[in-house]
Amino acid sequence: MKIGIIGAGRIGKVHIENIATYVREMEIKTVADPFMNDATEAFCKGYGVKAVSKDPEDIFKDPDIEAVLICSSTDTHADFIIRSAECGKHIFCEKPIDHDIARVKAALAAVEDAGVKLQIGFVRRFDHNHRAVYDAVRAGKIGTPHMIRISSRDPEPPSIEYVKRSGGIFMDMMIHDFDMIRFLAGSEVTEVYAKGAVLVDPAIGAEGDVDTAIVTLAFESGAIGVIDNSRQAVYGYDQRLEVFGSAGAVQDENDIPNTVVISNADCTHYGTAYKVMWDRYTQAFVDEMKAFADAVVNDKETPVTGVDGLYPVLIAAAAKKSLDEGRPVKIFEVQ
Amino acid sequence: MKIGIIGAGRIGKVHIENIATYVREMEIKTVADPFMNDATEAFCKGYGVKAVSKDPEDIFKDPDIEAVLICSSTDTHADFIIRSAECGKHIFCEKPIDHDIARVKAALAAVEDAGVKLQIGFVRRFDHNHRAVYDAVRAGKIGTPHMIRISSRDPEPPSIEYVKRSGGIFMDMMIHDFDMIRFLAGSEVTEVYAKGAVLVDPAIGAEGDVDTAIVTLAFESGAIGVIDNSRQAVYGYDQRLEVFGSAGAVQDENDIPNTVVISNADCTHYGTAYKVMWDRYTQAFVDEMKAFADAVVNDKETPVTGVDGLYPVLIAAAAKKSLDEGRPVKIFEVQ
Amino acid sequence: MKIGIIGAGRIGKVHIENIATYVREMEIKTVADPFMNDATEAFCKGYGVKAVSKDPEDIFKDPDIEAVLICSSTDTHADFIIRSAECGKHIFCEKPIDHDIARVKAALAAVEDAGVKLQIGFVRRFDHNHRAVYDAVRAGKIGTPHMIRISSRDPEPPSIEYVKRSGGIFMDMMIHDFDMIRFLAGSEVTEVYAKGAVLVDPAIGAEGDVDTAIVTLAFESGAIGVIDNSRQAVYGYDQRLEVFGSAGAVQDENDIPNTVVISNADCTHYGTAYKVMWDRYTQAFVDEMKAFADAVVNDKETPVTGVDGLYPVLIAAAAKKSLDEGRPVKIFEVQ
Amino acid sequence: MKIGIIGAGRIGKVHIENIATYVREMEIKTVADPFMNDATEAFCKGYGVKAVSKDPEDIFKDPDIEAVLICSSTDTHADFIIRSAECGKHIFCEKPIDHDIARVKAALAAVEDAGVKLQIGFVRRFDHNHRAVYDAVRAGKIGTPHMIRISSRDPEPPSIEYVKRSGGIFMDMMIHDFDMIRFLAGSEVTEVYAKGAVLVDPAIGAEGDVDTAIVTLAFESGAIGVIDNSRQAVYGYDQRLEVFGSAGAVQDENDIPNTVVISNADCTHYGTAYKVMWDRYTQAFVDEMKAFADAVVNDKETPVTGVDGLYPVLIAAAAKKSLDEGRPVKIFEVQ
Repeated sequence: MKIGIIGAGRIGKVHIENIATYVREMEIKTVADPFMNDATEAFCKGYGVKAVSKDPEDIFKDPDIEAVLICSSTDTHADFIIRSAECGKHIFCEKPIDHDIARVKAALAAVEDAGVKLQIGFVRRFDHNHRAVYDAVRAGKIGTPHMIRISSRDPEPPSIEYVKRSGGIFMDMMIHDFDMIRFLAGSEVTEVYAKGAVLVDPAIGAEGDVDTAIVTLAFESGAIGVIDNSRQAVYGYDQRLEVFGSAGAVQDENDIPNTVVISNADCTHYGTAYKVMWDRYTQAFVDEMKAFADAVVNDKETPVTGVDGLYPVLIAAAAKKSLDEGRPVKIFEVQ
Repeated sequence: MKIGIIGAGRIGKVHIENIATYVREMEIKTVADPFMNDATEAFCKGYGVKAVSKDPEDIFKDPDIEAVLICSSTDTHADFIIRSAECGKHIFCEKPIDHDIARVKAALAAVEDAGVKLQIGFVRRFDHNHRAVYDAVRAGKIGTPHMIRISSRDPEPPSIEYVKRSGGIFMDMMIHDFDMIRFLAGSEVTEVYAKGAVLVDPAIGAEGDVDTAIVTLAFESGAIGVIDNSRQAVYGYDQRLEVFGSAGAVQDENDIPNTVVISNADCTHYGTAYKVMWDRYTQAFVDEMKAFADAVVNDKETPVTGVDGLYPVLIAAAAKKSLDEGRPVKIFEVQ
Repeated sequence: MKIGIIGAGRIGKVHIENIATYVREMEIKTVADPFMNDATEAFCKGYGVKAVSKDPEDIFKDPDIEAVLICSSTDTHADFIIRSAECGKHIFCEKPIDHDIARVKAALAAVEDAGVKLQIGFVRRFDHNHRAVYDAVRAGKIGTPHMIRISSRDPEPPSIEYVKRSGGIFMDMMIHDFDMIRFLAGSEVTEVYAKGAVLVDPAIGAEGDVDTAIVTLAFESGAIGVIDNSRQAVYGYDQRLEVFGSAGAVQDENDIPNTVVISNADCTHYGTAYKVMWDRYTQAFVDEMKAFADAVVNDKETPVTGVDGLYPVLIAAAAKKSLDEGRPVKIFEVQ
Repeated sequence: MKIGIIGAGRIGKVHIENIATYVREMEIKTVADPFMNDATEAFCKGYGVKAVSKDPEDIFKDPDIEAVLICSSTDTHADFIIRSAECGKHIFCEKPIDHDIARVKAALAAVEDAGVKLQIGFVRRFDHNHRAVYDAVRAGKIGTPHMIRISSRDPEPPSIEYVKRSGGIFMDMMIHDFDMIRFLAGSEVTEVYAKGAVLVDPAIGAEGDVDTAIVTLAFESGAIGVIDNSRQAVYGYDQRLEVFGSAGAVQDENDIPNTVVISNADCTHYGTAYKVMWDRYTQAFVDEMKAFADAVVNDKETPVTGVDGLYPVLIAAAAKKSLDEGRPVKIFEVQ
């Protein structure tokens, strides 16, 4: 299965390295990036990429290429999805599809019309811990879910440049958790209430965003949930969740680099959480790519569909509206 | 220090046993309960109580008795506080003072006027785990608090009789967490948003109450918080909390009866949480009583004052209003 | 049930406080200690002890006293056991009975002849964690035991004065573990091999003792075991054990004072082990005394019999011989 | 760096897959195995191996090949080391070098004469947990080591065919632990005492071997240690160790596949240990190969030298002699 990759920034490079190293079903034929330079070309060639380009059309027009990975900036996602669909190529697109709900819907319609496959890059669905929680819930081990709780905190805030164009904490960070909470609940979100604060960096507030947030959610099933986010957990990448139900509860803990415990006269201590996302989620990034290859090669539905891409954007939009208006917001208000 | 105890129900008996066994500074002279019977009298005598009565006035009028423990039903608390104050006796009163804010204020005014000490029975402040979290926060180990999270779930729902007159989940159960979150935050709550559901028992819903709830809180300091409650955690008494701040996070785990781990071919398992509150909180009940004795004997301020009794009632009232009206409610709206 | 206590040193005082506070079945009539002084008398009176004396005969000759607690120095244990037996009084005796096997046997014979009850103070059998391991083994949860492993380390070495007269590390410290390993194995030890070293304090070596030791044991059942001891674990009281069997394994971890976990930029840490034995084992000391009261009051066999007192002494003697001679030693060689 | 691999059995295939997938510094030119067949050839080709052969001489005589991986049966190791050295090729050899100490010494002499590099496959030195323990010890975090304890248990016993020719539990299984304990101690073993039992499978005993063993060790430094092994831990691959020292202790716990904890009415449980060695040690196998490539490419000493291969064989021989003769054995007795 030959693929093209659009965008050779940080996330694009991670996919290139992972595919070349672990995903034997895929071959990267072309990497296109408008800012392609010698260093990036050398990186690509080092991982056996056949061709590099500044023009995505070199991918879209290539009849050899069966699928496209869209790893460019968010504002280009919808257009590239539409273009890939027109060219009959299967699509893996990083999250979110777009901040604009109408554009998301247009992109999904194009995919629908073309009959190609679309997978959205909600990588945490493939994390071994979160997946094991999901499996336990689906296997009925905790009965009917009543409450779902996600704590999700990054080691350090993004640059202010990033904050300016990211769409805000709900659209660029909590969107992962909106996806995860739907996934775990097995039910759609109907209402959100968002409470935010600027506690990490006033410059984030100056951009009209918050850096700390707690969002309460209601589900069609009657369950309720809560997500907390912080842009800065000094102890590292903190991502834990819990599903509480009629017959018990299941939770996961952070991965740590090793199991060592040191006891001395002052303290008993063990390792801190990972401080680099790529170290923490290597396995999940590989597994999402294997799942995409499996969907394309064996003609299965992708495990994270276009609809799975739409809903978190709706929830994020409702959360932003809730924060702005200081009241709970129904999802249908933003739909 | 001679004391009288009003109310010899479940909580009254716990205090009698604990004081007789562990609190050498106190001597229980009289226990008064309108439903005093032979069995209760035998129980009291078995723990060395000098006299029993059906009339609280036998306590109020006894010049020997320096302090009164009010362990009767909530609707009697305010009146007994006022009467104790009139009689110049120090007061330990079980939580909540009353569901009616005006009555709470009247009781506090009487205490103020009489210059007696008042301690409210928020026993979890004395729990060794929660206390160690508090100490870590106060010692600055996690920097400035940004978010506080409490999960608090009971092993099984109370009887419907209890639900009818308890004042609802916010007033009878989450009130402990409202106290704890103020205590940990070191800052007053300004606004709450309550989301509730009836997922455990429809009969609870039929009484106009919910059995599952998530409440978001904002603090004067700018921090935000969230509390979740369920009336039924089948795995036992689940009470965990976390304070997340600028320099780290501190959390506690449930106590379990022993540290044993069994590994066999199917599973690795350790003990479940306590399923009986009195087993779980023995140490905390003893310590709160020792603290009350210390305040009276050594003329110190009690560690849980009348104001500490008022605020959680305000927060609970605001939470109820928020649930009823489907919107965030400021504390001053109910004040 | 009225008792007398001989010896009001550290362990004697612990029993006085525990019995007065928690063991309602017992009443301490007399405490006898040749070094009885005003401070000790005040201590005893503070816990409601009726009489104090310098002469143990005031206990032995008192017809009111049904049982004697022997908490004096080890060299007096055998004589006091014999005297108590002569007087028809039940006996609780601290471990070890004596360092001399012939004297142990003489004491047991006197008990046998008199038909009184004897319980030996192997308090760790009553520890909630070790007991839960024992229960899991007896319930068959790990199948047939194959290997038993005990790590047992004290926070700090005893005084050299103590080392001079203690009988050595095997007789004064590891004897607890010899008892525990028999208890867990449900089978007698047949052979030991002891390896020791002086690593903590050369002064201990100067007295002919070791401060660090590993002892391998073989059991009649075919199982094998190992115990390690150190006189100084700077991180506190370290007592963990594991039973490994045909169907799994069970182990326990140290108790720590609370469950709090603090995560900051440098480290994730939780509480250290207890550094004071009396804090660590309060529950166990109380439970052994309740078990003794139960045996006397309800005429049951004591849970730690005279034979249970003899075997650890035999194992300790064999371990000492093994260390001295640098070879494995059979228990029958010292019997 | 072009390499040849001798032996395409289980361990050979693991190295082929790991090198092809993760070790970009190495290229496998030839795989030689006397039992080479179509399936193995297809496996090799699937991982990009250039040539396969039944004759190791196709590797030894190939001037292109810089290093040889010896993955054949133990009885061939010494001869292949000598032959590789003659041909001036660097050598990675699986453990143990040989059961016969004279043959080990002859192989090391040949390596010495030829001036080639030799690394022995003690893969656990590269395990992330054990390595972190080692690092903590070397960094002085626990002061001077006093006692070292290793528990090492396999999920299931090997076939009786394997037992017949493996050299026994000390030579084929505990040899890993002999290497690890030297590595952690930073000091040579001077004496061992071995106690063994046949508790898992009588057929193992019928071959003159034991399946359960505890070995006590003394080190030059004065420290002492103990290793326990079982051929069958039904709960999976159990490998934990602890170094106890003058300033504290460091231990590691087993890796488990995920961090999920499920609490229900009966039990709180988390994942079992890995039951397949290759899942458990993927990272370690890759890292040992990267370390070998680094030693060859950058002309460094290998991290596990020929002497590191000799000492565990000496200790294993002493342990066997100790078991046979029922007495502690000095290492110089077998040297």
